[in-house]
Amino acid sequence: MRVTSEQCLDDGVLEREFTLGEIPGTLWMPESAAPAPLILMAHNNGLPKADARLVARARHCAAGGYAVATIDATGCGDRPRSAADEQARAELRRAFQADEPADNVFESYIGPLVEHAVPDWRTTLDALLALPGISGPVGFSGWTAVGIRVAVVEPRIKAAAFFAGGYVPRASREEARQVTVPLLFLLQWDDEGNPRQRALDLFDTFGTREKTLHANLGGHTGTPWFEVEDGNRFFDRHLK
Amino acid sequence: MRVTSEQCLDDGVLEREFTLGEIPGTLWMPESAAPAPLILMAHNNGLPKADARLVARARHCAAGGYAVATIDATGCGDRPRSAADEQARAELRRAFQADEPADNVFESYIGPLVEHAVPDWRTTLDALLALPGISGPVGFSGWTAVGIRVAVVEPRIKAAAFFAGGYVPRASREEARQVTVPLLFLLQWDDEGNPRQRALDLFDTFGTREKTLHANLGGHTGTPWFEVEDGNRFFDRHLK
Repeated sequence: MRVTSEQCLDDGVLEREFTLGEIPGTLWMPESAAPAPLILMAHNNGLPKADARLVARARHCAAGGYAVATIDATGCGDRPRSAADEQARAELRRAFQADEPADNVFESYIGPLVEHAVPDWRTTLDALLALPGISGPVGFSGWTAVGIRVAVVEPRIKAAAFFAGGYVPRASREEARQVTVPLLFLLQWDDEGNPRQRALDLFDTFGTREKTLHANLGGHTGTPWFEVEDGNRFFDRHLK
Repeated sequence: MRVTSEQCLDDGVLEREFTLGEIPGTLWMPESAAPAPLILMAHNNGLPKADARLVARARHCAAGGYAVATIDATGCGDRPRSAADEQARAELRRAFQADEPADNVFESYIGPLVEHAVPDWRTTLDALLALPGISGPVGFSGWTAVGIRVAVVEPRIKAAAFFAGGYVPRASREEARQVTVPLLFLLQWDDEGNPRQRALDLFDTFGTREKTLHANLGGHTGTPWFEVEDGNRFFDRHLK
């Protein structure tokens, strides 16, 4: 892991940009020296790690005593995309503009994106836990489909907070039965592009015995800020 | 209002039993002298005010800086029941034992119970707000059907936290459209006697623009304790 920049932010959080091979990442940590539990934080559908909403969540979480890391995994954010990815994205745009059902297109774009992203997240997890100042246990926050896979294959993940607003491939919806860590599932009740019933069905599917759904009125980007605070308290219950 | 007993509890809460005409009630308040916002707290379906789960919630809420009041309204708890009430309860028991659909029986029992309970809660609200040490604004917690009516007719109610686990008469489900205060709706995902879809439909119906659903895995009485703390924080956002 190579740190490419480092700055102290005014909320007592240390922000580091890093690269790990071809993976660019950002790590936020409290400036205090005590070892902090780690939270992996990702947007649904591979949005860029520099997105302002993700950065705000990550900084708030770090100020609450966590090491928070995000990356642009293969094909995500500003990383180069394969010809197949570019074709799938073009097809997705076309389907949206034509107001066609986009499920099959989503499946062929997001499915491989998840498959390729998971190994990068696991590589990042290994590297981060080797750093001084970062301890287990580990939480996962955000991208549902990647989080399902990571939670199933990584026993170091002890709690997960997923955002329902993103396409979850069929294979991931099946795999959700195998998720057994405590779970907070966050839903926007009127999310334009993500059917409510599908999210409720997915909540029902998760195999964990300890799961909570938080749903708020409003569209995809309307999550109230108090949910960020609720997310911190959820992780406090399970990681601290 | 006549105070019939008073004791200081070990969590710094003052507990008073009172009567208001024929209405018996309990009031919990922080011992400190500062005026506290008021929360009216009731079980669904008129369960007794002395129920241990309600008392635990009320004391926690009072320790967080609220005046919390509960009553046995007409026909509720240990209050005398009319011949019609007794007959409806007997019919309800019979329907349960025979495993028959109980909706119509619930309607004929809970409908009038709600109608009769609401005036007692309003009388109590008037009396409590006249006491020193209790200020508005006012919140309502618990019994959905009574809370819907009280929130619609009482502009002093500024926030409501309802528990979905109770029969909500058809008229109340209609009236839910008129609820416009911020709302927290608490659902047990596998509540044996209360259909999940009906609760989700009711959440959808509430007219307020600021509403949050919290759903947890488990049966009717399985609500996790952290929801009591979340309830306090919800009221903190709107009443303090």
